[in-house]
Amino acid sequence: MENFTLYNPTKLHFGKDITNDLGKVIAGYGNRVLLVYGKNSIKETGIYNKIKLQLNSIHAVVFEYGGIKPNPVVEDVDAASRLGRNSNVDVVLAVGGGSVIDSAKIIAITIPVSHSAWDFYSGMKKPAKAVPIIAVLTLAATGTEMNPFAVLQNHKSKQKLGWGNPLCFPQHSFLDPGFTVTVPKNYTAYGIADLVAHCLEAYFGKGDASLSDKLVIAIIKEAIDNGPALLNDLKNYELREKILYASTLALNGITMAGRRSGDWGVHDAGHILSLLFDIPHGASLTIVYPAWMMLMKDRIPERIAQLGKDLFDVDNAKKTIDKFEEFFKKIECPVRLEEAGISKMKRQQILDTMNYNKVSGMNHKLSGNDIEELLDHMIG
Amino acid sequence: MENFTLYNPTKLHFGKDITNDLGKVIAGYGNRVLLVYGKNSIKETGIYNKIKLQLNSIHAVVFEYGGIKPNPVVEDVDAASRLGRNSNVDVVLAVGGGSVIDSAKIIAITIPVSHSAWDFYSGMKKPAKAVPIIAVLTLAATGTEMNPFAVLQNHKSKQKLGWGNPLCFPQHSFLDPGFTVTVPKNYTAYGIADLVAHCLEAYFGKGDASLSDKLVIAIIKEAIDNGPALLNDLKNYELREKILYASTLALNGITMAGRRSGDWGVHDAGHILSLLFDIPHGASLTIVYPAWMMLMKDRIPERIAQLGKDLFDVDNAKKTIDKFEEFFKKIECPVRLEEAGISKMKRQQILDTMNYNKVSGMNHKLSGNDIEELLDHMIG
Repeated sequence: MENFTLYNPTKLHFGKDITNDLGKVIAGYGNRVLLVYGKNSIKETGIYNKIKLQLNSIHAVVFEYGGIKPNPVVEDVDAASRLGRNSNVDVVLAVGGGSVIDSAKIIAITIPVSHSAWDFYSGMKKPAKAVPIIAVLTLAATGTEMNPFAVLQNHKSKQKLGWGNPLCFPQHSFLDPGFTVTVPKNYTAYGIADLVAHCLEAYFGKGDASLSDKLVIAIIKEAIDNGPALLNDLKNYELREKILYASTLALNGITMAGRRSGDWGVHDAGHILSLLFDIPHGASLTIVYPAWMMLMKDRIPERIAQLGKDLFDVDNAKKTIDKFEEFFKKIECPVRLEEAGISKMKRQQILDTMNYNKVSGMNHKLSGNDIEELLDHMIG
Repeated sequence: MENFTLYNPTKLHFGKDITNDLGKVIAGYGNRVLLVYGKNSIKETGIYNKIKLQLNSIHAVVFEYGGIKPNPVVEDVDAASRLGRNSNVDVVLAVGGGSVIDSAKIIAITIPVSHSAWDFYSGMKKPAKAVPIIAVLTLAATGTEMNPFAVLQNHKSKQKLGWGNPLCFPQHSFLDPGFTVTVPKNYTAYGIADLVAHCLEAYFGKGDASLSDKLVIAIIKEAIDNGPALLNDLKNYELREKILYASTLALNGITMAGRRSGDWGVHDAGHILSLLFDIPHGASLTIVYPAWMMLMKDRIPERIAQLGKDLFDVDNAKKTIDKFEEFFKKIECPVRLEEAGISKMKRQQILDTMNYNKVSGMNHKLSGNDIEELLDHMIG
């Protein structure tokens, strides 16, 4: 094992009607609230009204920034930060999925400063303080509700980057599985893909950590045991809660203990597909992961085979990859570029953008030739 | 799943020479330090000197309370609290195993008040504040380094009770596996038994939580994979780190998510054996757990069988119990009273004390008849 620090100060409130406690918790921080959310879905599902009732119960003064995009962009984050700064808010309240909560984290550290949020991403500036962040999650996927990470996209610089800082841990996150029952089939599946991919990034990271490996297996098994059933029964509360909790554990730190880093090469490559073709994050991962494992098949055959043995009871790397493809297909996710509507004619454009963004892993470094081979596996 | 809160603010610092950062961390809280430790072992192992170097490096004013007993008693805690109160300390620094860190937690909430620590245990008083707690762990066992619980013994009232409060989370815990390599074989084994028992208390608790069950299996497997090997190679750093980290995860909250409670009936009964015969906590558990599972064998046969299937690939409850006995014997722990030097002539005394203390589980309630049957299984 590598030396490590295990630290996660987020208080996770999980269960049926759990947001009944939200107003009381917000009031502990103040009553001027920047409410951040995405397009219109929280209004359609009634979640918006439930949250407003909680805010009204504490006589909160609410400033709203709606319209955060599924792949959040720096322009929105900067605009919301200006609103929060000018309104002197006590709390940033995020209600939505990963994109909304990620945005809220960056807004919370950008409110106290006068520059663009991107300066944190480019490394030009370091955050010194943050407005407290409270999250209400409506989609099981990214794990952002219990970690300090946020992904942001910058179309001008053609970048989509993941970044994190301890100031970005939400103080509280509220997870009501009932809030996720209206998530459509495809996004439910992309969320499952995302949580599985987070586990795999840890598994293929740097450093030998046998118990963290066992936790990876436990979480992926939970997704395999319950994910396909959920896709056939989207209103099932019990299945929603299992997938929701699995998605939180997949990226709250416990799979990483004893490793120097995760790999994140697949996420790096997936971000490029989202950047270029605006495809959902989870769908990018189910295309890239099998391709990446094919690229690694003869480099780390035992590591991939062990994963297959623990998860699927198969005995070699190729069969493990086949099993993952089978699982991703079972949850109706694309495993090749063209299944996501991306023509192989885009090969050069993808290659150029991946090279420009220096796509690579933190453990398994990718050369230019590797990226070409990765692309060929993605084309199939 | 039951609604739950997942919250653990302790910052865990884990790895080789990790206490090199201790002085710096303590200095963040002040320089008046109450140093709490057990009998002489930390002096013999050189750990005491390492800690003193860290304290000297920040010019700490140190008040020492040594001599905490393996089963900590209220008299020591009250005396150490008086010392801390009169010395106006900024930090309670615990260096030792579960008994020392448990004691430090109770000392930290007793320093600010004028009554005995036992008043918290009896429920007469509620703690309102605590002196910050920093722990340096020297024994893999109880998980106290990352939870808010503490066990205390009161010979006058003939009680040994577990109790917890969020104020009792250590702010920081430092775990250097190298600090545990001098732990003798028997206490190494008792620690392994304790961590396995913690997992089982969660597994037999209230509420259906499939992912928490999978984490229980992962942690017990880690103990089974590495525990017996460690007992044959006590100086092995890699095995020490695996067991040390497993013992932390076994009781830091992640096995409990989605349950209303653990069971804790076995711990309750085990505490009575320690109270009466001063036997090590872990040794009491390896006697009581097989007996308790025998008592439950026909009440929850499927639950016990599932555990056996996941851990040992056996197909019924009795075989599961046999496998646990086999494992406990392999790590040279007692599985019957007489193996711990407790004569069956003590049956009535044990029975009376268990009844007086109302020994029971939080999920599986134990009647007077149940206690008798439990005792008979313990006698064998």
